Amino acid sequence: MSEHAVKIFDSTLRDGAQGQGISFSLEDKIKIVKILDEAQVDYIEAGNPGSNPKDMEFFKQIKNVKLNYSNIVAFGSTRRQKSKVEDDKNLKNLLLAGTDVVVIFGKSCDIQVTDILKTSLEENLNMIKDTIAYLCKEGKKVIFDAEHFYDGYKSNKDYAISTLKFAQESGAEVVTLCDTNGGTLPEEIKNITEDVMNQLVIDVGVHTHNDMGMAVANTIMAVNVGAKHVQGTFIGIGERCGNANLSTIIPILKLKLGHDIIDDKQLANLTKISRYIAEICNITLQDQSPFVGNSSFAHKGGMHIDAVTKSPKSYEHINPEVVGNRRRFLVSEVSGKSTIFQEVKKIFPSISKDNNEVQKITDKLKELEYEGYQFEGAEGTVELVIRKTIGKYKPFFKLNHFKIIGEQPYNSEKFISTAVINITVDGKNEMTAAEGEGPVNALDKAIRKALEVFYPELKAVRLVDYKVRVLDSESATEAKVRVLIESTDGIENWSTVGVSRDVIQASWIALVDSIEYKLIKDIERKVKAYF
Amino acid sequence: MSEHAVKIFDSTLRDGAQGQGISFSLEDKIKIVKILDEAQVDYIEAGNPGSNPKDMEFFKQIKNVKLNYSNIVAFGSTRRQKSKVEDDKNLKNLLLAGTDVVVIFGKSCDIQVTDILKTSLEENLNMIKDTIAYLCKEGKKVIFDAEHFYDGYKSNKDYAISTLKFAQESGAEVVTLCDTNGGTLPEEIKNITEDVMNQLVIDVGVHTHNDMGMAVANTIMAVNVGAKHVQGTFIGIGERCGNANLSTIIPILKLKLGHDIIDDKQLANLTKISRYIAEICNITLQDQSPFVGNSSFAHKGGMHIDAVTKSPKSYEHINPEVVGNRRRFLVSEVSGKSTIFQEVKKIFPSISKDNNEVQKITDKLKELEYEGYQFEGAEGTVELVIRKTIGKYKPFFKLNHFKIIGEQPYNSEKFISTAVINITVDGKNEMTAAEGEGPVNALDKAIRKALEVFYPELKAVRLVDYKVRVLDSESATEAKVRVLIESTDGIENWSTVGVSRDVIQASWIALVDSIEYKLIKDIERKVKAYF
Repeated sequence: MSEHAVKIFDSTLRDGAQGQGISFSLEDKIKIVKILDEAQVDYIEAGNPGSNPKDMEFFKQIKNVKLNYSNIVAFGSTRRQKSKVEDDKNLKNLLLAGTDVVVIFGKSCDIQVTDILKTSLEENLNMIKDTIAYLCKEGKKVIFDAEHFYDGYKSNKDYAISTLKFAQESGAEVVTLCDTNGGTLPEEIKNITEDVMNQLVIDVGVHTHNDMGMAVANTIMAVNVGAKHVQGTFIGIGERCGNANLSTIIPILKLKLGHDIIDDKQLANLTKISRYIAEICNITLQDQSPFVGNSSFAHKGGMHIDAVTKSPKSYEHINPEVVGNRRRFLVSEVSGKSTIFQEVKKIFPSISKDNNEVQKITDKLKELEYEGYQFEGAEGTVELVIRKTIGKYKPFFKLNHFKIIGEQPYNSEKFISTAVINITVDGKNEMTAAEGEGPVNALDKAIRKALEVFYPELKAVRLVDYKVRVLDSESATEAKVRVLIESTDGIENWSTVGVSRDVIQASWIALVDSIEYKLIKDIERKVKAYF
Repeated sequence: MSEHAVKIFDSTLRDGAQGQGISFSLEDKIKIVKILDEAQVDYIEAGNPGSNPKDMEFFKQIKNVKLNYSNIVAFGSTRRQKSKVEDDKNLKNLLLAGTDVVVIFGKSCDIQVTDILKTSLEENLNMIKDTIAYLCKEGKKVIFDAEHFYDGYKSNKDYAISTLKFAQESGAEVVTLCDTNGGTLPEEIKNITEDVMNQLVIDVGVHTHNDMGMAVANTIMAVNVGAKHVQGTFIGIGERCGNANLSTIIPILKLKLGHDIIDDKQLANLTKISRYIAEICNITLQDQSPFVGNSSFAHKGGMHIDAVTKSPKSYEHINPEVVGNRRRFLVSEVSGKSTIFQEVKKIFPSISKDNNEVQKITDKLKELEYEGYQFEGAEGTVELVIRKTIGKYKPFFKLNHFKIIGEQPYNSEKFISTAVINITVDGKNEMTAAEGEGPVNALDKAIRKALEVFYPELKAVRLVDYKVRVLDSESATEAKVRVLIESTDGIENWSTVGVSRDVIQASWIALVDSIEYKLIKDIERKVKAYF
């Protein structure tokens, strides 16, 4: 356990589960443990077996999962006041979880002890002492989470420190200083942590929250003065504004501060791992997320694009590939021909910048932008525009016609949308229909149903995002709308865009692009595998 | 301009516009300026008149908008190398913008000068000097944005500092130190900024990016050593991972560091303003956003809820109301009865707060909000909800049914939408049909056509705004949508809102509210005129 000087402690499954909208099944939890193990996280805090029977079941099952790297940690509280540790049901369950490492949280702030626990300061110290000593005797490695520590230090410094000293003397191997309500400033974190470091011999950890948008910086400040355990959640989920984001902290520690906490190969998986965890959490990773977001290395201004091509450092503080991310040039009004050339080169590496086709593509994209298209992030549609302009495109199906019928029937609250579609693939006709939540949903279902007959690989595709933007909203219901669709096949995500005065037609255009992009990528993959 | 020691400088309209998916119309820009002025932002950087004709048009129009607080700032670059300032087209346009304050950005990093600008270090200094001196002579207050300053300081400290000194000596009133690629650590920011402070007499500002998730902390570090200008974007939008988030920085400066940068009343509007700006940007403000997010003060864990009820400070570092946000318990929603009472009183001035009906209305509005309604600005729908709950409502027509038919015919580019509607007014039946640009437009035309037979005053009504918002965009085409309609009869404008999984049904709900609101107002006017 000493291969890394600074240890990464992930609480996605415990503190992260407190985030709004987060709820893990047992299978989700096991999946996440496997990913975190792959990510070389030192500790995985996986739940509170005393408070939650679902968590207990998890601890039973996880024993059968072979992990290469991580320690599973069970989380629990100090014993109840005025009772014996041996009789404490929660502690019994904590032991039953059968982990080598346990976290015990207790109060370090005098006000919390008197006003919330409603017990004496002395009894709180005894609760810490008894609990930790008991668990150590039972052979556990104990980490003490000092809840409200920084507020406690500001309220009653001596008492706050004494809770840590009691933990140390009772056998805890680590004490973690918690900024529980997220209200502590970076320099306070630094000064207080430094003072603690001088008074303890065991390792000190830090646990921060993002209520002031400074959880990452606060963690870094603590590490800089010697904190050895970094608690957070891998993609920053957690109560209120979330916990310290480990997918941000890990590359900072490794790349900026020289802490060897993860090997280069695993660092190159950071983006993939973060997105996969987001997928399991059923949330969309913010495009703007540092290091691992979809936009983290996306450039829009023409001047920026020009400079980044000449010297990446200008607008990229690290090489995106180091964290498994990639540079993107957002094709937009403000960018010119050289951006588009970069895009064309991805598909036709041999093309030269002076090639006439590059100008033709540039003109076409500009024309579409003028009509209301926006290509930022819509790489799927950009690729199709390029292919169509350059003649490297063959439609995968022919639309004969579709009809949408919407009905608000007599005596019913419910509005029913039905889509009828008729297509031809390789001379074979397919006609089908589907009902949906609204006309676009019905159309989406119908076209998939029809095409899956010919292209079963489309079964893996689903839409993950659907955005509608009314362009000239002053024209009211006659206004042009832009529809942006993000699709996934579980491996890759791609976005496509459509514009029309009719939301159904705009959605149709984006849907068709999404499907064709997927089919093109599948062919490319097959070709690559074959040669 | 000296009422605040630390000045807030917003670049939503310039650097923010570089963010992925951000695109402002002229009207959007003017709306945002008005909001930022209300938010007591000292400087509003609104665009680059030299590079962009759309921005130039903005600067023309903004002169007619009366602002109470903010200074509008135009942004431009140092003169081109080996040319005269008097001949520089961009600088000419910058002057034409007609603002009192201009920002000039220039390179402060030696490598950027030699590798990107491809000019000599000396010529770059002259470019800074000539440009600033010229603009000062033209009566402008000049702020110098030292691009890549922190990287420049690390690469060639003396040269980086000399660019600032040239700016100071040429008449700049402020130099802003930029962490252009977002790769500088908090303590580096602190030490470097402190060194600069010791070498300059003019004010120093700071401009940070969020590539390491530390833009806010970096800004705070700079302010702590004396930086007087804080550059950022109000909700953190910007290239890559975004700019420093002012909606986070403002309350930290005011509440945690005692800088009197905004009065209490405006601070209490922070949440509302942030959400309104997000709405104009057509992005969803992250629930987890510090201070202003939907979850910023949301508590999920039972223990947390218990503790927060006993002692809010346990899990709330500030009182949410101070920033206009509110505490939420994720298990049970709590009401804002007194706000709703104010709304009810507008319609029924004699009602008392204890009246049962007020509670009933509160419950109904909460229920609708839970379903995805948003009543900010939708006073038409609010009035109708109040009337319906209290029994002061009589429908103006009965819908029997409507049908929407959409067709993408054989051999046609054009998609045709038709609406058929059947209504009853005072026992008289009216059935009609209309074609339109899309299903909603067709439906809008059909219902008006049918109702005008009975209510000719509806002929004066037209829609001036139609917005569609996909609520849970991750559910793709099955997602709930919120439709916001703004209508006018030439005298008054009013807004109504509808929510459904079906865009047609959501639009229908908002359309009906719009029509009924108009007819109620007409009756009120007639009553008033008669008595």
